[in-house]
Amino acid sequence: MKDGLRVELGRRYHFAASHRLHSPRLSEEENSRLYGKCNNPFGHGHNYTLEIRLSGPVDPATGMIADLAGLDAFVAQRVIEPFDHRSLGDEVPAFAEAVPTTENLCIEIFNRLKDFPGARLASVRVEETSKNSFEYLGQ
Amino acid sequence: MKDGLRVELGRRYHFAASHRLHSPRLSEEENSRLYGKCNNPFGHGHNYTLEIRLSGPVDPATGMIADLAGLDAFVAQRVIEPFDHRSLGDEVPAFAEAVPTTENLCIEIFNRLKDFPGARLASVRVEETSKNSFEYLGQ
Amino acid sequence: MKDGLRVELGRRYHFAASHRLHSPRLSEEENSRLYGKCNNPFGHGHNYTLEIRLSGPVDPATGMIADLAGLDAFVAQRVIEPFDHRSLGDEVPAFAEAVPTTENLCIEIFNRLKDFPGARLASVRVEETSKNSFEYLGQ
Amino acid sequence: MKDGLRVELGRRYHFAASHRLHSPRLSEEENSRLYGKCNNPFGHGHNYTLEIRLSGPVDPATGMIADLAGLDAFVAQRVIEPFDHRSLGDEVPAFAEAVPTTENLCIEIFNRLKDFPGARLASVRVEETSKNSFEYLGQ
Amino acid sequence: MKDGLRVELGRRYHFAASHRLHSPRLSEEENSRLYGKCNNPFGHGHNYTLEIRLSGPVDPATGMIADLAGLDAFVAQRVIEPFDHRSLGDEVPAFAEAVPTTENLCIEIFNRLKDFPGARLASVRVEETSKNSFEYLGQ
Amino acid sequence: MKDGLRVELGRRYHFAASHRLHSPRLSEEENSRLYGKCNNPFGHGHNYTLEIRLSGPVDPATGMIADLAGLDAFVAQRVIEPFDHRSLGDEVPAFAEAVPTTENLCIEIFNRLKDFPGARLASVRVEETSKNSFEYLGQ
Repeated sequence: MKDGLRVELGRRYHFAASHRLHSPRLSEEENSRLYGKCNNPFGHGHNYTLEIRLSGPVDPATGMIADLAGLDAFVAQRVIEPFDHRSLGDEVPAFAEAVPTTENLCIEIFNRLKDFPGARLASVRVEETSKNSFEYLGQ
Repeated sequence: MKDGLRVELGRRYHFAASHRLHSPRLSEEENSRLYGKCNNPFGHGHNYTLEIRLSGPVDPATGMIADLAGLDAFVAQRVIEPFDHRSLGDEVPAFAEAVPTTENLCIEIFNRLKDFPGARLASVRVEETSKNSFEYLGQ
Repeated sequence: MKDGLRVELGRRYHFAASHRLHSPRLSEEENSRLYGKCNNPFGHGHNYTLEIRLSGPVDPATGMIADLAGLDAFVAQRVIEPFDHRSLGDEVPAFAEAVPTTENLCIEIFNRLKDFPGARLASVRVEETSKNSFEYLGQ
Repeated sequence: MKDGLRVELGRRYHFAASHRLHSPRLSEEENSRLYGKCNNPFGHGHNYTLEIRLSGPVDPATGMIADLAGLDAFVAQRVIEPFDHRSLGDEVPAFAEAVPTTENLCIEIFNRLKDFPGARLASVRVEETSKNSFEYLGQ
Repeated sequence: MKDGLRVELGRRYHFAASHRLHSPRLSEEENSRLYGKCNNPFGHGHNYTLEIRLSGPVDPATGMIADLAGLDAFVAQRVIEPFDHRSLGDEVPAFAEAVPTTENLCIEIFNRLKDFPGARLASVRVEETSKNSFEYLGQ
Repeated sequence: MKDGLRVELGRRYHFAASHRLHSPRLSEEENSRLYGKCNNPFGHGHNYTLEIRLSGPVDPATGMIADLAGLDAFVAQRVIEPFDHRSLGDEVPAFAEAVPTTENLCIEIFNRLKDFPGARLASVRVEETSKNSFEYLGQ
């Protein structure tokens, strides 16, 4: 088996958070029509599943593309700790202005993780419910 | 095949809601120690999976124990509409005093559904995350 | 560890079949109202998941309650072979008269499996979709 | 967070249908050998899971790439309504001539959805069973 | 909502382990016939899912039947630490003599957890693969 | 529907195996730090889920891109038979020298399947646990 072949790793994390979809750039009527029950002023919440994909060459000495323990610590510090069991709009600074849709959540998480030193971050995918997922591959 | 044999139906519903675990009967310190990050004052949320079990004899004419369309309408009106995309502590009256733990959620849902006319309600099970579920079988 | 303690085994099988819900004991209008789109004359189909539960004492020599290879062969011959990739109403004799609802499917499968020699059949559970399951525990 | 970044949305739908695999371009023997039990003249059925992927820039005002309510209505009218609880070969015109394999189902669904006005349709993926899925990305 | 109503909690844990099925009470031929490829002398392994069910009255002050953090620590010390990423036959004393079947695994785990102080242990269920699960409810 | 359009097939297989992560190119200390409990000398195991993706044009006569029965037989002979219920390090020659990480497992399986005659092998993806998956797309 040749060394250095490029493999992708997908790793899953879970966090639970609440949010309210409401855009200051839209009227009350537009907010209500567009976001429906997600516009409820009291908020609501989800169990989010986060899957990140990393791409890199297989290290011939270890047979791995990244140190998983290092990756887990990095994701815990950058994303899980500040997002889990939080109210996204109230407690995550990026969502003071951006609407905490799952689209924007993917982008925010990608930006928090993109300088992981061990391997290239290929994509961030967030599943909001069993019907919905969003994926951001960077620019 | 003999008619009237007793069969159990399990039917699943989904709703997303936010809550905060905080008991007025406990001190701040006890709340913090017991509920941990679930005590976060800004709240957080979950995708809840509700599974109800109904028991009844199979009707010889229809081959069914209950009219599913009637059941779905009953559950929608009693539970899904008032719980989905809501803040449980702020918007569901029972949780003005009871702590909105999943244990209490099961009991509250059971009480809202127990007089379904078509078949006997055998249990209410609520899955809060993929690691946790609670089930109430009535008294 | 004491021998002979009672353990339950749950084993899952899959089959795909088509059916039409239509009862000769009901009028056309009643059939249409009760079964809705399941009454479509051309039929429709499902991936059924069958879970059977067997109960028995753990054999001290083998550490098992039943021979799984023997169980699989028994279920294959009695249920999977005659049901999989079949039209239930056209090809399974019991459904020439009984409506092929999942309730009746559970009872029919239970009757076909109840004399498994190795252990007591405790229940038959059939999942028709991710929202629906039915379980029959015998009389 | 910059606006207009490109995100992919995956959205899942479910439908149950029956089909029979049989090609008029093949002999009876070839049909039987190639399709096996899927060639059963009485047909059989599946629970199909449809996942569509849409790609588009995040709208700075809404934080979204597409209006989900509009998408759901579009998919319901074009695919779910005509396919769900139907016999594909008997009731969907495209399968009067094309064999209703999952490959052809993907292509047919892609063609029915590709002019969704809100965002670019990137792919259509259909899961026929837990072992099998097919994906079509357009030409 | 009345306090003290009895609710069941199901909580899931995961561990990965290897084992070999071989009984010293059987001949080589019997071992080979009964256990098939599970009798492979080099062993093999599984991702085990453990679900424990606890039953107890809901505490009126907390809305809970047990302290989950205390439960998790108890299960980690008694089961996850000694079983996870281990060879069951080589490293768990009970399986020096009993065959490490999933039946015996359920009983061993039940015995390790039955004196949890916070609530009554109602059952231990172990899923060995997506096709197989075993459950032990105590004597 | 035009013939010859390119579709991707994803097909899933399961196998259970044991392994130990240990690299002869690293010191004992480095092995222990890098692989953690996966370095346990007695080994441990997993239920592996293998998903292979094949790409090809839809045959106008059959509506399919590959003969699934032929594919299943090919995968069974090349991968499932030699890997299932085996100790990867002891019984698969490639892992006599390469560390049996899931990265290397993907590459080894890809190499065993890449000359499938019916369609182009696009990728091999192996899920080791519900948290981890790896994918190799060839060179």
